[in-house]
Amino acid sequence: MISTKVATRGPTASTRAAAQILKSYRSSAGLRPTFIIAQHVQPARTGQRSFSSSDSPKVKEFFVQKQTDKVRKTPAAWSHPAYTEEQMNAVTVAHREAKTFSDKAALLAVKFMRWGLDTATGYRHEKAVALNEKDPEAARRKYAMTEEKYMIRNVFLESIAGVPGMVAGMLRHLHSMRRMKRDNGWIETLLEESYNERMHLLVFLKMQRPGRFMRFMVLAAQGVWCNFMFFAYLVSPRMVHRLVGYLEEEAVYTYTRQIKDLDAGLLPKWEKLQAPEIAVDYWKMPEGHRSMRDLLLYIRADESKHREVNHTFGNLDQKEDPNPFVSEYRDPEKPHPTKGLAYPKPTGWERHEII
Amino acid sequence: MISTKVATRGPTASTRAAAQILKSYRSSAGLRPTFIIAQHVQPARTGQRSFSSSDSPKVKEFFVQKQTDKVRKTPAAWSHPAYTEEQMNAVTVAHREAKTFSDKAALLAVKFMRWGLDTATGYRHEKAVALNEKDPEAARRKYAMTEEKYMIRNVFLESIAGVPGMVAGMLRHLHSMRRMKRDNGWIETLLEESYNERMHLLVFLKMQRPGRFMRFMVLAAQGVWCNFMFFAYLVSPRMVHRLVGYLEEEAVYTYTRQIKDLDAGLLPKWEKLQAPEIAVDYWKMPEGHRSMRDLLLYIRADESKHREVNHTFGNLDQKEDPNPFVSEYRDPEKPHPTKGLAYPKPTGWERHEII
Ligand SMILES: [Fe+2]
Ligand SMILES: [Fe+2]
Ligand SMILES: [Fe+2]
Ligand SMILES: [Fe+2]
Repeated sequence: MISTKVATRGPTASTRAAAQILKSYRSSAGLRPTFIIAQHVQPARTGQRSFSSSDSPKVKEFFVQKQTDKVRKTPAAWSHPAYTEEQMNAVTVAHREAKTFSDKAALLAVKFMRWGLDTATGYRHEKAVALNEKDPEAARRKYAMTEEKYMIRNVFLESIAGVPGMVAGMLRHLHSMRRMKRDNGWIETLLEESYNERMHLLVFLKMQRPGRFMRFMVLAAQGVWCNFMFFAYLVSPRMVHRLVGYLEEEAVYTYTRQIKDLDAGLLPKWEKLQAPEIAVDYWKMPEGHRSMRDLLLYIRADESKHREVNHTFGNLDQKEDPNPFVSEYRDPEKPHPTKGLAYPKPTGWERHEII
Repeated sequence: MISTKVATRGPTASTRAAAQILKSYRSSAGLRPTFIIAQHVQPARTGQRSFSSSDSPKVKEFFVQKQTDKVRKTPAAWSHPAYTEEQMNAVTVAHREAKTFSDKAALLAVKFMRWGLDTATGYRHEKAVALNEKDPEAARRKYAMTEEKYMIRNVFLESIAGVPGMVAGMLRHLHSMRRMKRDNGWIETLLEESYNERMHLLVFLKMQRPGRFMRFMVLAAQGVWCNFMFFAYLVSPRMVHRLVGYLEEEAVYTYTRQIKDLDAGLLPKWEKLQAPEIAVDYWKMPEGHRSMRDLLLYIRADESKHREVNHTFGNLDQKEDPNPFVSEYRDPEKPHPTKGLAYPKPTGWERHEII
């Protein structure tokens, strides 16, 4: 993994770098410029509390893998499909056009949720951009995204992301039993998605323990979100899958941004940070590819898969169609949906392509 | 598989056979005598509607595996651990003594549910036994368990059995995320249990389509049961696991009885019945071992595993202990809990044995 470290000589250089990142974001087609003004602290030495950036950094132990007198280890439940480095680097920000009324409602809901989160975390995008034009240094101080801020945001988002798959999986399970119909493979992918999101959460928690306020927010958000998902999925599973598809677009976007900021030298505490053991085990990260940047690449790739899965599910007949991601194809040579990243399709597969 | 077919020459012989089965049940230690008066119809030729007993019988197609223009097959989600014939034959009826107050409450709840089901299906055990003493032929006519009655009962019970694992798995998933704690492997086993139960249900449905009344009963029961499980698991997960352990004791018992009745020639329609394809695929049933009797052995073995898992979970610290069924042990040579039947423990593992 090549990390393009920006050589800096003080706050002025770092501000210049931030402004440049901002510009590059605004010009790149798919990327909407949000949260883009990032703080650049002096490399190492100063202000390193939560993260160490020594040569072999240790992450704070928030919770440890259970070991008892008799038990040595409890491995991850469902093994993760392997991604190649090439596949992970090829993941891109994308947006599926909202065509139907239901699509538009889903997109609106995601935008509303994003606005809510931005407001709660005190971020004002327009103001940030405006201030940056006038006084980049002030903008940096006021709206900077630090490693800690990114991490807290990631924790919150991942704790939310693990809900829809579990709720949808449970409802389809109960539906299959009470209607006495086969599920045709959807439950598996939905539950594995929620498991995968929970792993993301646990990995981030290994690196930073959130404060009381964030813990309370996560608790409250789960209560609301879980109930909302439950009823929404009963009313329109198709719309929920589209909504999750749009949420995952945002997830791919936010991790892409973190990787870019890291490459630009704006997140120095992450530069020498190693992925925790739980992550190495889960993704089977090869030696020499266990940096924070690698971790972000894996997580982003997962999010791109969720984006594809949910946009595809949103295109299918919810009751009759088999799950295209676990099905065997009559013509296995032709590109088709898989659990891995062999044939990525950011905006989802259309029904006629696969059924 | 050796099937001890009873030679019969008419209704008198079959009645005599039924009475004998009754006697053998009452004397066998572990088996409580319930539903034991079974009907013996003349082998083949007459009255074969739902089941064919020709040499290569076909089961009624209730629903078919989805195949589309492009999709060939959608395999089962989680692969089933392999059981040997020996292991399956070694499964026995068992009962864990209720020691604590919570245990006793759980056992009482199961007894109450059983009483409810017996009443709903019009079965009166004491009356049946009494009538059998006086007039076996009348008892047979009035209280006989036919293939159809067993099947309907199985469908109802399996549709109920798939709920607790899913609810418990979901609640532990949400708990892990909002409390920011590792789950230590429980979710996996709980979700797989519910998946396994749903497979049992689908397999039985492949063989007999329930009528309107039973379909309504399944629907209503799920509504009540699902809510009960949800709140009960929030209040006392330990008690719920114990309760499921007791339910699974009943499940092992009922399948043991079906196998015995089949061996005694009391269920002739099942004698040449073959397991449906969905079952052959799921359990990877070897050729020559795909009869209805084999199927019942597999399902009973699954139930014995659920019994062991839930009784064990009921013995553990719900929040701190790792799941002993997916853990790796410091001393792997010593008997320890596994996903398969290598070290069966019908009444569950005590905490000090494994943690
Ligand atoms: Fe995630
Ligand atoms: Fe995601
Ligand atoms: Fe079952
Ligand atoms: Fe069971």
